[in-house]
Parts: sequence; C-alpha cells; structure tokens
Amino acid sequence: MRARAPASSANLGPGFDTLALALDLRVEVEVAPSDKLVVRSEGEGSDLPADADHLAARVAVEVVGHDRLAVTVRSQIPVGRGLGSSASLALAAAAAAGAEDPLAVAVRLDGHAENAAASLRGGLVAAATVEGRPVVVPLRLDPDYRFVVLVPDRRLPTAEARAVLPALVAHGDAAFNLGRLALLITGLSDHRLLVAQATEDRLHQTQRTQLFPESEALMAGLRDAGALASCWSGAGPTVLGICLAADVERVRDRGQELMAEVGVAGRALALDVDRKGLEIL
Amino acid sequence: MRARAPASSANLGPGFDTLALALDLRVEVEVAPSDKLVVRSEGEGSDLPADADHLAARVAVEVVGHDRLAVTVRSQIPVGRGLGSSASLALAAAAAAGAEDPLAVAVRLDGHAENAAASLRGGLVAAATVEGRPVVVPLRLDPDYRFVVLVPDRRLPTAEARAVLPALVAHGDAAFNLGRLALLITGLSDHRLLVAQATEDRLHQTQRTQLFPESEALMAGLRDAGALASCWSGAGPTVLGICLAADVERVRDRGQELMAEVGVAGRALALDVDRKGLEIL
Repeated sequence: MRARAPASSANLGPGFDTLALALDLRVEVEVAPSDKLVVRSEGEGSDLPADADHLAARVAVEVVGHDRLAVTVRSQIPVGRGLGSSASLALAAAAAAGAEDPLAVAVRLDGHAENAAASLRGGLVAAATVEGRPVVVPLRLDPDYRFVVLVPDRRLPTAEARAVLPALVAHGDAAFNLGRLALLITGLSDHRLLVAQATEDRLHQTQRTQLFPESEALMAGLRDAGALASCWSGAGPTVLGICLAADVERVRDRGQELMAEVGVAGRALALDVDRKGLEIL
Repeated sequence: MRARAPASSANLGPGFDTLALALDLRVEVEVAPSDKLVVRSEGEGSDLPADADHLAARVAVEVVGHDRLAVTVRSQIPVGRGLGSSASLALAAAAAAGAEDPLAVAVRLDGHAENAAASLRGGLVAAATVEGRPVVVPLRLDPDYRFVVLVPDRRLPTAEARAVLPALVAHGDAAFNLGRLALLITGLSDHRLLVAQATEDRLHQTQRTQLFPESEALMAGLRDAGALASCWSGAGPTVLGICLAADVERVRDRGQELMAEVGVAGRALALDVDRKGLEIL
C-alpha cells in the first residue's frame, strides 16, 4: 500500500504545541511484503541511514507486527527544519502499513500531535491532549493566504530546540501568549483581522533565537517585503511568512535575497496550504 | 446623556485576561449638568458610597473635565462577583459623559480590557494589548448557546483574586492553556465541537479555588445537570455554565439547588448573550 501526507508548520508563533498548518510539500511511503526488511529512501532525507532505525521502518514494523517488509520513502519535505517531516512520515508510513488509526500510531511513535493532525486533515488545526489522547479541531483558514518558507540548509534538531526552553515562565508571559493566540486564530480565519503582532510569542521563539540569531532579521525582512506576519515554523530553523496570494511571489523572491544578505544558505519557497491531508493511494 | 452597557464574563477558563462574553444584564448611566457633583445609585451596587470616589463619577469627571455633574447609575449587574460590573460601569459612564472613545477611557481608568471590549461590542470577543493599546477582535459564538450564572451573595474583590496568582508558572502549564484556549474558541464557535475539557485552566482557576472551595462542586454539578462546560466567571466568585438553549432552564434550576446543597447563599440566573453592546440612548 501507498500513502501520502503533507508537511506542516506548527506553533505559528504563540500557538506553541497547539496550532499546525498543512503545507503543500509531500512525503509518500510504500509498504510491501518482502523476504526481509528493506528500506529505500529518495529525495529529502535520503541521506539518513536506510535501516531498521528509520522512522518509516519502525512505524511499519510496529503496525504490521513483523519486519518482512519493503519500505520505500519518497519525500519533498526537508528533514530537521521545522516542517513536520517526522510526523508526516510516521503518519504516511502508518497508513501505508494498514493502520486503522494512523494518527494514534504517529503520535505514539513520534509525538508532535499538532503536526500529525495537520498532516492527517490538511488545512489549519489545533490539537490538545485530553485525558491522554489528542483532540483535534479544525480552524478556519482564509483562502487568500499563501505562505513563504525560508528553509536553511542546516538542520536544527527538535531535541536541541526543546532543550533551551525554560522550566518556568512568568505568569504574564503565559497570559501574553493567550492573547496573541486569540488574535492569531482570528486573523488566520480572516486576513482583514490579522495584525502583525499576532505571531508574537514569549514561550519559545525568544528563547530559541540564540540557536538561530539570523531568524530575527529574516522574520522582520519578510514583513518588510509584504508578509502580513512572520514566525518560526515549528522548532525551526525554517522561518514562515504569512502572505496574501497576490504578494507571495514577491515575498519569496525577497526572502531568497534576505537569506543571502544574512549569510544563511538555503531555499525560499512559496507554498499553498494543503487541503487534502493524508491520502491512501 | 444616557448610555447602557451589558455585563460580561471574562477568562472562561483558559482565556485568562483574553476572552470575554457579554451577558444580558445591564447598567445604565445618566450624566447631566448640575451645580455640584451628585451621585445617585439604584439597584445593584447601590450600597457603595455615592460620592466622588464612585467609579461612574470618576470616569464622568475625567471625561467632562469638571465635577459639576449629576451622575445617576441604575444597575442590574451584581458588583464584585466576576461579571465585569466595573468595566460596564466605566464604559457606560464614559459614553454618557460624551467620550469619543469610551473603550479607551474605561481601560485607562478601570483596566479589564477584555471585559470592557465585550461590553462595548456585545457577543464574544478577545482582547490583547498591542503596543500599549487594546486590540479587540470578535469571535464567533454559536447562537444556540445560553448561560447559567451562579452568583454568590458574597463578593470576591478582583484584587484579592489577583493576589493568589503565582509569579511563575510551569512552561507546560502555559502550553496546556494554549491548547485549551484553541479548543474553547472552536467549541464556542460551534457547540458540536465543544468538549467539556475546553474550559480547563492552569493559570488562575486552580489557584483561586482556595478563595472559594465550593466552586469545584458547583462547576461539576452544572456539567452533571447538562451544561456542556463550566468555569469561573472572571475573577469569581460567580460560576458560569455553558449550555444549549434547550437545557438552560433545567441547569439554572439545578444550579439553585446546588448552591443550597454546598451552603453558598446566592442566585442562579439563566442569561442570553448580549449582542447589542454599548447603547447611547
């Protein structure tokens, strides 16, 4: 069986571990019977070891219950960049292996419920853990939005990005994020209500700037170029610009220049939201 | 001039200092020329000193620029119970005194931007402070909702309720509230998406339970009686039940019994949302 799932951009500023948006880059996984475990990988992530520790293999073996499988991965989703590649891969692998509830499998083996939920459903979602299980709700996304992602060539492992988060935060900072999240959910539902400050955050972006100091200039530069707002994508280092369709090519082009100006090697992409979510082929 | 503004219920569980809902109880303020400052007060809050320190007088004097005013207040909004009475009063007084921007006046003299914003616009709103100013956005509220408020006879001053809040909170608790807030905003927009856990909170309700231990039994009892979710109203001690129209009378009646059972003197009211907001009469 084959299955395909889109990339996703989580957090979106204030929505730490809550919001995620499916983006139009895909990973496809094929799982077939075989004499022994064989893992093949093409495209993004094909430099990772293609062995039994590969996430797609671990997920497929867990679902099927044995390892006599040929697992083939073809991916457009850059790995370790904050684009939800592991959640998309786990979800597509679980579905290709025949899981009844691919989301539950992906969350159990990979975590990142909000990324997996966006990859499952497409569009914009919020996820929260209620009594140990992910509860996912769809959120309205204005169809006029397009997105620019600035994807640095270097990876920033999520574990490293998590390690800089503080154990405690000021009560006022927690409340600050609540206000920004409400502004952002509203602004994403209707671009006329989006204010640039809606993506401000005090729970992770500020703390992670030390890991990627150029992120501040990139975010500000995207706004200057016409993005309505900008933020980190997931745990970074990808930076996301929230744009109107009419502006997205120009912002993308300017984003590519910005990366060169601040000395960050990488790609600027203009992406549509993915509305299909998980597809079983 | 006369102006009228509705009560409001803020926070709604996870939306600390962010969400507020206008409710169908009103305060009316009349401001007229006079030889000297005269303050009259009828209805709720009429036991407070009717002098120059009365909030309505302070607001009117600030707006008009002198104190030769007769200020008359007629209120249905219980005072010091978490129903936004001071924000409603400040807003109505500012409007009755001729303020060009009654919201700005109310926020400057009373704080509570989210309460004042709900009283201004009606319905459900989110407010956040952006560059020192309140930014207010409307949120969709499913028209099938009605609300039960359990209003204890005793007051709980907001200052006292604020004093028990911690300076620091766990990063995970801040993230917990973000997830719940997203579930709540979605559930309030469409009752089919509301889960009872959407009103769970870790930033203020738990900490305030010590000030009103019976609140836990009242919130659980409202849910058992048919409310879809329940929470503190503002800084309390009023408890709010979020109900469907078909259930609200029954939940109200059961709420009145619950108050008696836990030994809390007070009133149970079934209220509609207010959609009019501030009215200049």
